[in-house]
Amino acid sequence: MVKRAGVLGATGSVGQRFILLLSKHPEFEIHALGASARSAGKPYKDAVSWKQTDILPASAQGVVVQECKPEGAFTECDIVFSGLDSDVAGDIEKAFVDAGLAVISNAKNYRREKDVPLVVPIINPEHLDIVENKVKAARAKGEEKKKTGFLICISNCSTAGLVAPLKPLVDKFGPIDALTATTLQAISGAGFSPGVSGMDILDNIVPYISGEEDKLEWETKKILGTLNKEGTEVVNIPEDEMKVSAQCNRVPVIDGHTECISLRFAQRPPPSVEEVKKTLREYVCEASKLGCHSAPKQTINVLEQEDRPQPRLDRERDNGYSVSVGRIREDSLLDFKMVVLSHNTIIGAAGSGILIAEILNARGLI
Amino acid sequence: MVKRAGVLGATGSVGQRFILLLSKHPEFEIHALGASARSAGKPYKDAVSWKQTDILPASAQGVVVQECKPEGAFTECDIVFSGLDSDVAGDIEKAFVDAGLAVISNAKNYRREKDVPLVVPIINPEHLDIVENKVKAARAKGEEKKKTGFLICISNCSTAGLVAPLKPLVDKFGPIDALTATTLQAISGAGFSPGVSGMDILDNIVPYISGEEDKLEWETKKILGTLNKEGTEVVNIPEDEMKVSAQCNRVPVIDGHTECISLRFAQRPPPSVEEVKKTLREYVCEASKLGCHSAPKQTINVLEQEDRPQPRLDRERDNGYSVSVGRIREDSLLDFKMVVLSHNTIIGAAGSGILIAEILNARGLI
Amino acid sequence: MVKRAGVLGATGSVGQRFILLLSKHPEFEIHALGASARSAGKPYKDAVSWKQTDILPASAQGVVVQECKPEGAFTECDIVFSGLDSDVAGDIEKAFVDAGLAVISNAKNYRREKDVPLVVPIINPEHLDIVENKVKAARAKGEEKKKTGFLICISNCSTAGLVAPLKPLVDKFGPIDALTATTLQAISGAGFSPGVSGMDILDNIVPYISGEEDKLEWETKKILGTLNKEGTEVVNIPEDEMKVSAQCNRVPVIDGHTECISLRFAQRPPPSVEEVKKTLREYVCEASKLGCHSAPKQTINVLEQEDRPQPRLDRERDNGYSVSVGRIREDSLLDFKMVVLSHNTIIGAAGSGILIAEILNARGLI
Amino acid sequence: MVKRAGVLGATGSVGQRFILLLSKHPEFEIHALGASARSAGKPYKDAVSWKQTDILPASAQGVVVQECKPEGAFTECDIVFSGLDSDVAGDIEKAFVDAGLAVISNAKNYRREKDVPLVVPIINPEHLDIVENKVKAARAKGEEKKKTGFLICISNCSTAGLVAPLKPLVDKFGPIDALTATTLQAISGAGFSPGVSGMDILDNIVPYISGEEDKLEWETKKILGTLNKEGTEVVNIPEDEMKVSAQCNRVPVIDGHTECISLRFAQRPPPSVEEVKKTLREYVCEASKLGCHSAPKQTINVLEQEDRPQPRLDRERDNGYSVSVGRIREDSLLDFKMVVLSHNTIIGAAGSGILIAEILNARGLI
Repeated sequence: MVKRAGVLGATGSVGQRFILLLSKHPEFEIHALGASARSAGKPYKDAVSWKQTDILPASAQGVVVQECKPEGAFTECDIVFSGLDSDVAGDIEKAFVDAGLAVISNAKNYRREKDVPLVVPIINPEHLDIVENKVKAARAKGEEKKKTGFLICISNCSTAGLVAPLKPLVDKFGPIDALTATTLQAISGAGFSPGVSGMDILDNIVPYISGEEDKLEWETKKILGTLNKEGTEVVNIPEDEMKVSAQCNRVPVIDGHTECISLRFAQRPPPSVEEVKKTLREYVCEASKLGCHSAPKQTINVLEQEDRPQPRLDRERDNGYSVSVGRIREDSLLDFKMVVLSHNTIIGAAGSGILIAEILNARGLI
Repeated sequence: MVKRAGVLGATGSVGQRFILLLSKHPEFEIHALGASARSAGKPYKDAVSWKQTDILPASAQGVVVQECKPEGAFTECDIVFSGLDSDVAGDIEKAFVDAGLAVISNAKNYRREKDVPLVVPIINPEHLDIVENKVKAARAKGEEKKKTGFLICISNCSTAGLVAPLKPLVDKFGPIDALTATTLQAISGAGFSPGVSGMDILDNIVPYISGEEDKLEWETKKILGTLNKEGTEVVNIPEDEMKVSAQCNRVPVIDGHTECISLRFAQRPPPSVEEVKKTLREYVCEASKLGCHSAPKQTINVLEQEDRPQPRLDRERDNGYSVSVGRIREDSLLDFKMVVLSHNTIIGAAGSGILIAEILNARGLI
Repeated sequence: MVKRAGVLGATGSVGQRFILLLSKHPEFEIHALGASARSAGKPYKDAVSWKQTDILPASAQGVVVQECKPEGAFTECDIVFSGLDSDVAGDIEKAFVDAGLAVISNAKNYRREKDVPLVVPIINPEHLDIVENKVKAARAKGEEKKKTGFLICISNCSTAGLVAPLKPLVDKFGPIDALTATTLQAISGAGFSPGVSGMDILDNIVPYISGEEDKLEWETKKILGTLNKEGTEVVNIPEDEMKVSAQCNRVPVIDGHTECISLRFAQRPPPSVEEVKKTLREYVCEASKLGCHSAPKQTINVLEQEDRPQPRLDRERDNGYSVSVGRIREDSLLDFKMVVLSHNTIIGAAGSGILIAEILNARGLI
Repeated sequence: MVKRAGVLGATGSVGQRFILLLSKHPEFEIHALGASARSAGKPYKDAVSWKQTDILPASAQGVVVQECKPEGAFTECDIVFSGLDSDVAGDIEKAFVDAGLAVISNAKNYRREKDVPLVVPIINPEHLDIVENKVKAARAKGEEKKKTGFLICISNCSTAGLVAPLKPLVDKFGPIDALTATTLQAISGAGFSPGVSGMDILDNIVPYISGEEDKLEWETKKILGTLNKEGTEVVNIPEDEMKVSAQCNRVPVIDGHTECISLRFAQRPPPSVEEVKKTLREYVCEASKLGCHSAPKQTINVLEQEDRPQPRLDRERDNGYSVSVGRIREDSLLDFKMVVLSHNTIIGAAGSGILIAEILNARGLI
């Protein structure tokens, strides 16, 4: 049965992506769209300044936008995707969860909460056990008929790409104790109103993205962390067990974050380059095993050409759900260097939200 | 007295830059221009496809291009600048030096020779002592009337920017034992025939530049090295005393290489961020003390704005002879992170050649 | 039955596009690939430097490249697509046609031949009657068992976009006697080896494309022309009945040619803006009526937003087979001004070749 | 004696340009800076987000910003440059003129007023006679000691480039009765807060600039117009004597507007291409004859290379005060086609303001 989906922040950059992905999706239908009071009451096509490369989907055009309150059509939603800005996401998302709704958010507000899974769906879907445990507990208490609200956070866009090759390697070769990442990030991540100014990015690099380095450094430790015994909270990798150092840059690229990373395993001696490549190539994400609609055929593309991955050529692999890794080679300082490319608006934002929902659906949680 | 200058590879990208800089220079005049046999015999204006943002200087337009042999007008040159490609530079530059000419080369062919100084003029002009010692020895043998040929190599463009902040820090706080650099390099460094293709660089990043990472890693150890007791050779920093790890990218920027670096001092505890900034701010290069025409007023610009340096806004500081450093902050893995910006065709190529010649001139060596 | 397709110039930019489109096509299979002697004998994956945003299709990877001669696998092809450069296309294409093969060429060599249709498949498929008449005549002579070779030329990329809105208007309102077009052309049209240099196109415009203005001016008169009574030749619109003036520019855009055009009808008074829009909206191309696989759902997209069409947002409409037209308004000098956007590698090159082949197939001509 | 200059809208894009040009100017000194109430009271360096490629001039850093009222330091100014946005320029500029100040404005508000000269200083400085006549009349009335306020408008950026080649041609060959211009405009003209979004301009063209086509069409008729007998008003070229049709596009270029134009002379037969080129080459603007500091050495650069002018290579000719014209050739529809390039922030905005002030100063009007 097709699930009813709501989108909060529907007129924004992330919201438009959610709508585009939902409009072609076999499991979901667009049921409720929320935006600011200024847009409320208008058909979506009149409320939005549509800026996607696909045309505004017919199924969204006539939906009347409502305010971002857990009322009306939103109360009938099986899942609600939030593309809200962080300055308003806090209160709104809380209200939705309190009202018993299932919310998947791209905002940063609740990412640090221990009982809120921070999920890159091709990497740590096991953190969704927190939600499963919560839902089961509620059902056990006879609350079946009442919906159990919960919140899942999508990771920061550049974190999603970074952790992709790390997880299979850690699973196989044990902890990584040192990691550096210098990012070359696309402008679509900044939205378009105003987003990155043309004067700032044509023939230029901006070697700074507010808050980004901090996110890369701590989110990695949560996503690679484990659940507590009760399965109710995430236990981050301790600070002193993994040093992460990030340097973030904005570059003149529309979509696709490139990250030059280096890493060191705790285990001595470290694996060989060939073992690293083989491990990445053979990694199959849980979503693929579950047969999720958007799951990548090849979770991690290991490229052998010396000048790849490149954002314009490689960002669309498996519709942006696959992460590309190239130039895997030994490092004179740590153990390995490599270049990671991920699609920032797919696996790094809205697309991950959709795939998380598919996993929830496959698990019977929505 | 104005010195006569020759340019080898005069029609190429680097050669054009040499000519542009020489045409406005108070100490040098363009006396001989060398190019391939195809161009020889033509007035320069007919031989060149001029691609600079300044118009072709009047003083170069009518100069008849000759072949790259130490004959004719070249034998009358006080200094010869080589912008030759590495596939032909080896033999030609050797022939010029053997003929008693003073050659400053942008090619990579002889950079590793111990008795050939590899010079970033704002950083290690003391390596020119090798030339001075050679000239003095020749003069002492009564060879004054005969010219003493010698060769000086300009460093790789991205190395020039990297070593700029390192040298003052090493002078003050002792050895750096670990260094990482991820570069975002402009396309002008690749020339324009064909150089970087538009299809490769619009809305794209190329995470690979052939041979570049190796150059960054070893050239740094020569430029920061010392001379032997006799002052005839450079002694590189030993491999095991300084680990350097580079990752090089080509980005859609016309001029200006951005480098995200991190470094660790051997000395424990390391200096403070403020001490690092102060040391960089107070560094005055030898060329400035000598009053060289092109020497920067401020050798290193330490920027405090959190989103600087940026190539489009900061590359022209002191006509491209100043290096900008920003975002100096502590690093969780090594000691410090910072962003370095340098003008790749000025301090990273032709401009450094000119400033080296000014230093030689000030020292009476040409 | 699936038709066997050959591609000449298979390693080049246009050839790669043919292969990509064929690899997903229900009616065609890749049967023969031709390239230079240097590539001959190699599996395609080793011969090509693949530069498309989709990965190299599995069905092409192992095909052994042969020389561009009407031999071997080429003789078994039902249709041959030529992406050859004009410096070699002349002799090779002639040889293929003489050998009885059906050739659709992107090269300019034979475009001016009266008995060679110059076809934009969404605009003037009726010019293919020349081929039909030739084939029927041959069959009538009892040559059925022998193949009848013929050649069809694809128009220049910028011409394809230009004629798209003209044809429906001329059909409805009679001759256009004056036409101006200033183009802003994407760089993919120039190929990638070397194509447009990054130094020429970053932060820049090149207001010149060799031969392009001439092509725009005369090809328009052939494509909008009629067939002679016998149906064997195209009769161009006479010079004095239609003045066309073009100005062509290369701009920093990957795909999608934008053209600012103005036009005047011979008929006085001219139609209204609304009549023009209606006519364009209601135009349904023959290929759509025939149900061709690649035919656009909406041949011409008439956009009402004042800042559209834009290449990045609108070039992919109907997979690049639809042409977008916006800003239709009155002109103070001629009758109307408008902005036309077309995908230069789809409707302007390889894609048109494929759609022409589909029409031929639907008509039973291959 | 150095004149005291004020700048209104000092923190904006145009204001910053005024300040940069004034800081290096021998005839003017920065005396008063005006901005919004939010900035008032702060030293300029703290009020501005400086975004120029030159560093913030020392002479401006400490100037305390005041509100845009004709009070305080502004009352002591010999000349006031306005870079105000049009939504506030109307009232403020009126107040300044009423207070007896000489104002040169980049805003559009008063451009259509008949007694306000609309001046491209290299083209129609004779329109400044209106100001001279007003000042003389006031002085004749014994008002010498009191300042006579007046306003001069700088033309729209794209108009400045367009009229540059027209004026010498009209002076020599008589009226132009038809003119088309398709522009490819740089993004710096839109300012940087927010200006053109990176998402709108990377790998893209925006075929629309609000109000721009109308400005190009009517301003041309005022700038090429004449003064009435009394020398108090501009008489525009009548609508029916000159048809102008403009199509305006925003392109991914930082600085420099490219315009593809075509034109027809009323005179039959028209001049030859060579006569047109000669006329443009020989044109010497009044400001050059007066020896004005910023006046171009060559008012119009006629380029013979078939692929020029190009914005990145040619925009800085004579510091941006020279206009480049290339590809002059016959047109099949009108008489001639050509490509015009002008620096939009110099001759198209702040730079023209400065040169107008130099002319006023040379004429003893400030």
